[in-house]
Amino acid sequence: MKIVCSKENLLRGLNIAMRAVPVRTTMTILECILIDAQASRIRLVSNDMEMGIETFVDGDILEKGIAALDAKILYEIVRKLPENDITIRIDENYSAVITCEKSRFQIPAQPGDDFTVPPMVEKNSLLTMSQFTLKEMIRQTIFSIASNENNKLMTGELFEIRDNVLRIVSLDGHRISVRSMPLAGQYDDIKVIVPGKTLNEISKILSGEMDDQVSIYFSKNHVLFELENTILVSRLIEGEYFRIDQMLVAEYETRVTVNRKELLDCIDRATLLVREGDKKPLIIRIMDGKMELLIDSSMGSMNEDMEIDKKGKDILIGFNPRFLIDALRAVSDEEVSIDLINPKAPCFIRDDEGRYIYLILPVNINAVQYTRENE
Amino acid sequence: MKIVCSKENLLRGLNIAMRAVPVRTTMTILECILIDAQASRIRLVSNDMEMGIETFVDGDILEKGIAALDAKILYEIVRKLPENDITIRIDENYSAVITCEKSRFQIPAQPGDDFTVPPMVEKNSLLTMSQFTLKEMIRQTIFSIASNENNKLMTGELFEIRDNVLRIVSLDGHRISVRSMPLAGQYDDIKVIVPGKTLNEISKILSGEMDDQVSIYFSKNHVLFELENTILVSRLIEGEYFRIDQMLVAEYETRVTVNRKELLDCIDRATLLVREGDKKPLIIRIMDGKMELLIDSSMGSMNEDMEIDKKGKDILIGFNPRFLIDALRAVSDEEVSIDLINPKAPCFIRDDEGRYIYLILPVNINAVQYTRENE
Repeated sequence: MKIVCSKENLLRGLNIAMRAVPVRTTMTILECILIDAQASRIRLVSNDMEMGIETFVDGDILEKGIAALDAKILYEIVRKLPENDITIRIDENYSAVITCEKSRFQIPAQPGDDFTVPPMVEKNSLLTMSQFTLKEMIRQTIFSIASNENNKLMTGELFEIRDNVLRIVSLDGHRISVRSMPLAGQYDDIKVIVPGKTLNEISKILSGEMDDQVSIYFSKNHVLFELENTILVSRLIEGEYFRIDQMLVAEYETRVTVNRKELLDCIDRATLLVREGDKKPLIIRIMDGKMELLIDSSMGSMNEDMEIDKKGKDILIGFNPRFLIDALRAVSDEEVSIDLINPKAPCFIRDDEGRYIYLILPVNINAVQYTRENE
Repeated sequence: MKIVCSKENLLRGLNIAMRAVPVRTTMTILECILIDAQASRIRLVSNDMEMGIETFVDGDILEKGIAALDAKILYEIVRKLPENDITIRIDENYSAVITCEKSRFQIPAQPGDDFTVPPMVEKNSLLTMSQFTLKEMIRQTIFSIASNENNKLMTGELFEIRDNVLRIVSLDGHRISVRSMPLAGQYDDIKVIVPGKTLNEISKILSGEMDDQVSIYFSKNHVLFELENTILVSRLIEGEYFRIDQMLVAEYETRVTVNRKELLDCIDRATLLVREGDKKPLIIRIMDGKMELLIDSSMGSMNEDMEIDKKGKDILIGFNPRFLIDALRAVSDEEVSIDLINPKAPCFIRDDEGRYIYLILPVNINAVQYTRENE
């Protein structure tokens, strides 16, 4: 095999393919990237057995062939070579020579047929959307998947199409994040759970441009994302996702409208008095026209008043400040509405159009203590 | 005590004072910054017992006083407060209240007289230079101090004035770095060893501007750096520094002149085949008009030719590539000269004006192996 391509093109391809190279694996062949130059285009393939990536690189095939190269070494070599054409030649003894200008690297290669290629997924059940929108919808929900594997379902996100609306949902037992988008056209109903890791990786490959498209195909056990020149295939998580609709109540006793950035800054300041692992709640006291934030820890105390617009009852409630920060960062609106029911019931940060809903459970607080101390 | 100053000024002062707050200490009071508002200006003081910093902050003293506040908490609070005036009030019970706009923090303070202030150093034996020059001279030598404490002398740098020339020297047993600068005016001879940690910290405080001045005072056991608004005092390392002059020979058998950036890039590429802790030497073969770099490791091999200008004999020599990279990065000249004597003798990277000398010991290589394999 002998191929020539510009450093720029090769590096762009490797940057994508590296995302499915496992960090740790017992199958050392998976630490490689497969270079497939058997047909008319150069194709890079990687696979961590949960997720596989194929990406095409522009370049010339001088001698057809296929072989696998250690992904990390190949990537480092290409990254450090001069900005010029790079030649990769792999001989019948699987010795690879990588040259660029006067620089010449020699590293061992592996036969291509030792490599486990990702599964072929039938391309039916298609959904096409802008890369920007998918990237945003993932960003706005991915933070509330569970980080531990105790409940496998919580480590993924629900992708659901119902009545031609796409809904992406994540939850971790303390909060639920929901992003919805009406689709143009007619779609079959779909309900699958995509692993969080897959979504993190596809997110990094998506361009974030409104004009670039991504196609998504669902099969029984797999999801396939297709971009220009790149395909990412991932297993789905098996199982029945949680029924969340009954938890997303629309009623409220108190509705607060507040500047999002100001509230974020204020919570951010409050949390510096909370050490990692310390479960100090942020106390929020809502009155007419004013919201007071309080925190009290072994390091000191902090309180701050904010101007708000309020409808309904006064309320005193406690939250894990981290959960409020995550939800407020996901939203880009200048002002947000927070709906509350009572100090034991979840709050909802949501917009009128139903594009997003963030449900956050409160933390139990000793209301009497805060009422006495501050009045 | 009650002071008011802008967030910007206070943060600038804290950024400087934080540099002498110890990360770990058995004297918890040293984790504090002393706020001294007893006289006409606000002064921040920190001290890790090796090094002390005093810096003045512009602001108003509304009630005179002195107290110490936990450095890390104070710094985090100030950093996250809005861009506006910050008030710090510390009452007779050493409860500190920090307010800014509607935000109010309460943290405990310590009495000022519990704090160990840095020693007073008599300001004689003065040297004044531009902050840019000092910062550069430190940057160009600090990398070759020893990182472990086995030989205390090697963890510092020699500051020597002789015949009105300032010379800064560092060495770690494998290499020596020397930067010299002729001084304008008459100076007493001086020979002291300044701790590497002190030089790292003063480096970060120095502005790097040619027009800003720094004054340096030496006493028997201390060095004092004085900038506008800031003083840094440090202990010196006791002992007699190594005699390096007999090692800095001027003769050579081979002189190579080479483009610095190209050589750096080439060595940088070669080192990616060397794993951390692996002691593979970089082999350099110097011939007429051409230098060949070779590396051979368990990961693969690399070779690259470079155009050079050569005077004297051909030579085959091995080096720790890290040492060459450090020296080549310290220099800013477009072309560098490398003087060599034989494969067992150190090489010298130096300029004609005697501004810098980098001595690097070679690594023993099996010359026969490389001669046979490549010819």
